[in-house]
Amino acid sequence: MATAHGIEALTGAALMKAMLRPCSVALVGVSDDTGKTAARPLLFMRRAGFKGTIYCVNPSREQVQGERAYTSLSELPERPEHVFILTSSELAIAAVEECGRLGIGVATILAGGFSESGPEGVARETRLKEAGLRAGVRLIGPSSIGVVNLHERLMLTANAAFAEPELRAGGVFCASHSGSLIGALTSRGIARGFGFHSLVSVGSEVDLSIGEICNAALDDPSVTGYLLFLESLRHAEQLRAFALEAARRGKPVAAYKLGRSQAAAELAVSHTGALAGEDAVADAFLSDCGIARLETFEGLLEALPLLARLPLGELPRRPRVGVVTTTGGGAAMAVDQLGIRGIDVVAPSEATLARLAASGIEVNPGRIVDLTLAGTRYDVMKATLDVLLEAPEFDLVLAAVGSSARTRPELAVKPVIDSRHHSRPLACFIVPEAPEALRLLNEAGVPCFRSPEGCGDVIAAAFRRRRPGNPPPAAHTQGRARTLDEASAYRVLNELGVPSAPCLALDVDAPIPPLPFDFPVVVKVLHAEIAHKTDVGGVVLNVRNREELEQAIARIRFQVKDHRPDVAVRQVLVQAQTRGVGEVLIGYRRDPEVGPLVMLAAGGVLTELYQDRSLRLAPVDLTGAWEMIDEVRGLRALAGYRGGASADLEGVARALSALSQLANKPELGVVEAEINPLIVLPDGQGVLAVDGLIYCAEVQA
Amino acid sequence: MATAHGIEALTGAALMKAMLRPCSVALVGVSDDTGKTAARPLLFMRRAGFKGTIYCVNPSREQVQGERAYTSLSELPERPEHVFILTSSELAIAAVEECGRLGIGVATILAGGFSESGPEGVARETRLKEAGLRAGVRLIGPSSIGVVNLHERLMLTANAAFAEPELRAGGVFCASHSGSLIGALTSRGIARGFGFHSLVSVGSEVDLSIGEICNAALDDPSVTGYLLFLESLRHAEQLRAFALEAARRGKPVAAYKLGRSQAAAELAVSHTGALAGEDAVADAFLSDCGIARLETFEGLLEALPLLARLPLGELPRRPRVGVVTTTGGGAAMAVDQLGIRGIDVVAPSEATLARLAASGIEVNPGRIVDLTLAGTRYDVMKATLDVLLEAPEFDLVLAAVGSSARTRPELAVKPVIDSRHHSRPLACFIVPEAPEALRLLNEAGVPCFRSPEGCGDVIAAAFRRRRPGNPPPAAHTQGRARTLDEASAYRVLNELGVPSAPCLALDVDAPIPPLPFDFPVVVKVLHAEIAHKTDVGGVVLNVRNREELEQAIARIRFQVKDHRPDVAVRQVLVQAQTRGVGEVLIGYRRDPEVGPLVMLAAGGVLTELYQDRSLRLAPVDLTGAWEMIDEVRGLRALAGYRGGASADLEGVARALSALSQLANKPELGVVEAEINPLIVLPDGQGVLAVDGLIYCAEVQA
Repeated sequence: MATAHGIEALTGAALMKAMLRPCSVALVGVSDDTGKTAARPLLFMRRAGFKGTIYCVNPSREQVQGERAYTSLSELPERPEHVFILTSSELAIAAVEECGRLGIGVATILAGGFSESGPEGVARETRLKEAGLRAGVRLIGPSSIGVVNLHERLMLTANAAFAEPELRAGGVFCASHSGSLIGALTSRGIARGFGFHSLVSVGSEVDLSIGEICNAALDDPSVTGYLLFLESLRHAEQLRAFALEAARRGKPVAAYKLGRSQAAAELAVSHTGALAGEDAVADAFLSDCGIARLETFEGLLEALPLLARLPLGELPRRPRVGVVTTTGGGAAMAVDQLGIRGIDVVAPSEATLARLAASGIEVNPGRIVDLTLAGTRYDVMKATLDVLLEAPEFDLVLAAVGSSARTRPELAVKPVIDSRHHSRPLACFIVPEAPEALRLLNEAGVPCFRSPEGCGDVIAAAFRRRRPGNPPPAAHTQGRARTLDEASAYRVLNELGVPSAPCLALDVDAPIPPLPFDFPVVVKVLHAEIAHKTDVGGVVLNVRNREELEQAIARIRFQVKDHRPDVAVRQVLVQAQTRGVGEVLIGYRRDPEVGPLVMLAAGGVLTELYQDRSLRLAPVDLTGAWEMIDEVRGLRALAGYRGGASADLEGVARALSALSQLANKPELGVVEAEINPLIVLPDGQGVLAVDGLIYCAEVQA
Repeated sequence: MATAHGIEALTGAALMKAMLRPCSVALVGVSDDTGKTAARPLLFMRRAGFKGTIYCVNPSREQVQGERAYTSLSELPERPEHVFILTSSELAIAAVEECGRLGIGVATILAGGFSESGPEGVARETRLKEAGLRAGVRLIGPSSIGVVNLHERLMLTANAAFAEPELRAGGVFCASHSGSLIGALTSRGIARGFGFHSLVSVGSEVDLSIGEICNAALDDPSVTGYLLFLESLRHAEQLRAFALEAARRGKPVAAYKLGRSQAAAELAVSHTGALAGEDAVADAFLSDCGIARLETFEGLLEALPLLARLPLGELPRRPRVGVVTTTGGGAAMAVDQLGIRGIDVVAPSEATLARLAASGIEVNPGRIVDLTLAGTRYDVMKATLDVLLEAPEFDLVLAAVGSSARTRPELAVKPVIDSRHHSRPLACFIVPEAPEALRLLNEAGVPCFRSPEGCGDVIAAAFRRRRPGNPPPAAHTQGRARTLDEASAYRVLNELGVPSAPCLALDVDAPIPPLPFDFPVVVKVLHAEIAHKTDVGGVVLNVRNREELEQAIARIRFQVKDHRPDVAVRQVLVQAQTRGVGEVLIGYRRDPEVGPLVMLAAGGVLTELYQDRSLRLAPVDLTGAWEMIDEVRGLRALAGYRGGASADLEGVARALSALSQLANKPELGVVEAEINPLIVLPDGQGVLAVDGLIYCAEVQA
């Protein structure tokens, strides 16, 4: 990426080097007063024992915390690789400009006071961004509390949480929209024996986005997985590109995203200035990217070991979990939490029970293997795990260990650790308070959980992931420039492979030709500027013959004229009136953040009340379309529920997949398409669109 | 309660004394081998320093663990107050019989092998129960791992978890269906600085139920609250009686109940032999009893302090929470978890913001009070809390404290503790790992949470509770002995105050009289033995005149004869055909576990798929009925949603409350009543039952 000055802006491994493995750093505006925030980076870097060179820049002092202070970056004896700017917002812009003049690669900006604080701030942010772009300086922030690489003892951070003495370096790369959360993640990670590689507060991402920052670390072999705290899906394209690469290399990504509730979604907006996407879009986007979205905060910290054990693309849609336990009540809590998330705990097969018996393990028949009778002993648990991990009926084996985990981990925790190398994944839920057992399991890389909720959350999120596909071609479109009239919409839909009910456009002033289909028919005003035809009296149903057809056309002309005197009605659409055994709504839209999406919902007002729908990144193939059908609860009424006729759901799957192919046809300029309803005929007879609305953008060069 | 032998079986305070404050105990079958389970009670009692007398009974040894062993209970120099029976099931029955002969008040039975293990076990359990009942011995168990009272250092338990050295005595009375869970609750409680009063494993409750055991402790002033782990709702009547008394004395009750998922509900059955109630029934029962049901295991351990601060009966239905924080991202997680549980986080009012400004606290306007700008300082947090706790717009103030809680609790945690005596409730979410801060808060009695999920769970569960009402009169009814015919059902319903559509019963062989209402009408076969009329061709709709009415009657006679040759059709019911703006289903049933329940659901197949209904203990008043209406999402379609006509929901509330009065009329013998549908007319025009099904039991003397 060449800039105006001909300087190459850093990306990939070179960016990683300057950002997180710099040989020299400069602290602009570093404070001498160790009670102040701006003093912390120097304090922490020295305490941690950073091996590179640290330059202090502070024009108002000769020394800072006993180190020589330079008046400006240009005075330094060498060009630092990474500059941490601790000054207020206006001075920060000047510092970035200076970085640009000196050819410095990366600057991290602590100050707030940019786009989140009114029109003046927006203007300031534009200047900051341009200063960086023009000069080829990659920017982290503003509003970044800083970056940390524990392997390098690089503590370019003003986060008080890094006063922490016991920070263990490991493989987890953590990036967060919220700076203050980095502290909570760090301390909670420490308690779990977690090793972080790096922690980056990405701030408001005027230049480097969370996706780009994570992407830069992908080639570092010491990074084993990613942990993201997201407030929104801004820069989703880069996040997706990163997720695709991470999936290709088998590096797991776990994310917690705010905005499950409307209130928190609004908070995320006010907090960061980004438009928080609808939460269902976030769910679809993250799953389709192969990123595990956790619903519990604890689950976020527990997810990576299991994700690492479950390769994307080989995951069953309905995973079967086998459970072995030394505490019936404890195991039942985990079974409950799995069950409410749609994960089946299945009983061992007859063959497996026979193998257990042959190994001398006495268990009561039942959904879980309860070792209460057999006793809490190493040999009992180990022999049981040996049998269960060989059993083909399980996709995952979960051991729920009771109070012995606290006092005598050698009895039932050690056998879990000793079984970790089996090809079938194994996880462990520790029912009592037993931090030492969790630490042992974590250190051995065994997925383990300290709460039944975390257990259910992580297992469900791990299996919900899908292998990310290549993103569809980019579309350079903006807004809804024009609406297609209904007849044109059907032409687009039919071309894609979505059938519609037979119809004919008629000029309202011309004689009525013979209809190529039978009565009764529906008559609708046909005009690109009238999207909501019923609202203007533009629809007549149950038209039974030619005479009624003439009357209907006259009525529509009259009524539409009344409602919309601005529109000249020249045509109506006559459509065969169709009745099916059910109706669905299918839709497509190009979301400004995550790109093309396809949606399926059962028809009617109730499904809207229940928010019962399935959403995915487009395009989807037939398998994906069937998975979407399975996700819409209301559609069970179409599958012959309670003796009703069974509807052609295969036709729905075909139509859905066909509609989603709009993602691959940016040249059509479709930004939104909705078929409501798509009539579903009895099984084997297909589906028919009877209303279609398509919005296009002007296609740009 | 006098027994056959004239011995008074213990209840209430006397039961509490013998069960948990005995001066002398006997251990029957106690083992000398300290590796064995049956050795533990003696080990633990001695280690804890029990002040009373411990007698060891073991006929095969002279000494047990260095103590004199007696050959039988009758050989003891005094009558122990509480006997812990550690033998196998058959010997346990004999020991209970001996307790009876000696007039011993309480025996706890460790052994399993009773009703959970097949027909032989069931017979054994009956013998055990009768042995206890006959002799007036109160039994805990069987399958009880034992009882503990930390104040008395009474460790009558075989639970290995009580090897724990640091057990702090406190006010929490814990009772559990699962014995192994007691260990997990204990260790997790210790970690939170929790003090337990007593812990009771209630086993399979052949005599003393969890409700009776808790009830016995109510008069003990050192018991400040209850924590229950439930597998099912067996003996619900006693649980309700306890909850009512606990509410009267202001002692909070928190419960975790298994069975959220179908799989775990089945597990609870196989685990204990009890029929696990439907989970929605459990929800309704526990809320209506004033018991807070927690959805998270961690929440169970965190709930009591907040419950103690929120007196039952004064709780707003839509609580408003104010949030102050030193970490925007951390607070947003809590807001999210509150929001998805229907708890509104509301912004401070203009007046409150003005008071904050007057106190020198600078905050950005928004839903939460974010102190990032003002700084993490004692004076800032304290002054902010002083203002927020006075603000009338909040029912609860939540402080979300960031990383400083870990390293410097004096900055933002101490001011929370120092504000705890304000009349408005205050709670605290600790975002980082900060066990010391949680301990300080717990010791000060400030409700505090270590996860956003626990925070949302506890706050929502606390406000969801209702003050328990007196249970309705008992009904000595069994099964569905008879069905009322539709006309009789309407008479019962009309009498209660539930209106029905005008109708007339006609003899099929008599001439048709003039109808007292207009055509069109519906004609239905009228017979107590035909509940599902449509299935036998017994319904004709849209009957427009007398001629069609005659035809309809003939058709029904013919069709019903065809389907049900066993039934002689003598009457039909003619009913005014009614159309409303919506339909609902209302129902009543006397549940074998929890007693009378009333139910409301939107009509139709989709609401069944969505399980969209509200369930409460009957009777309900109009306020309760309106709350139920608010809980059924599908009914929003009847409240004028999206321009639809608005329906008479007041009429629905009246009908629901009227139907629920069946709970107060056991003399009617109604065990189940369903109105499906209840037609809802436009606002102000009421509701009409157009189908009613009532099952009665024979009323017993």
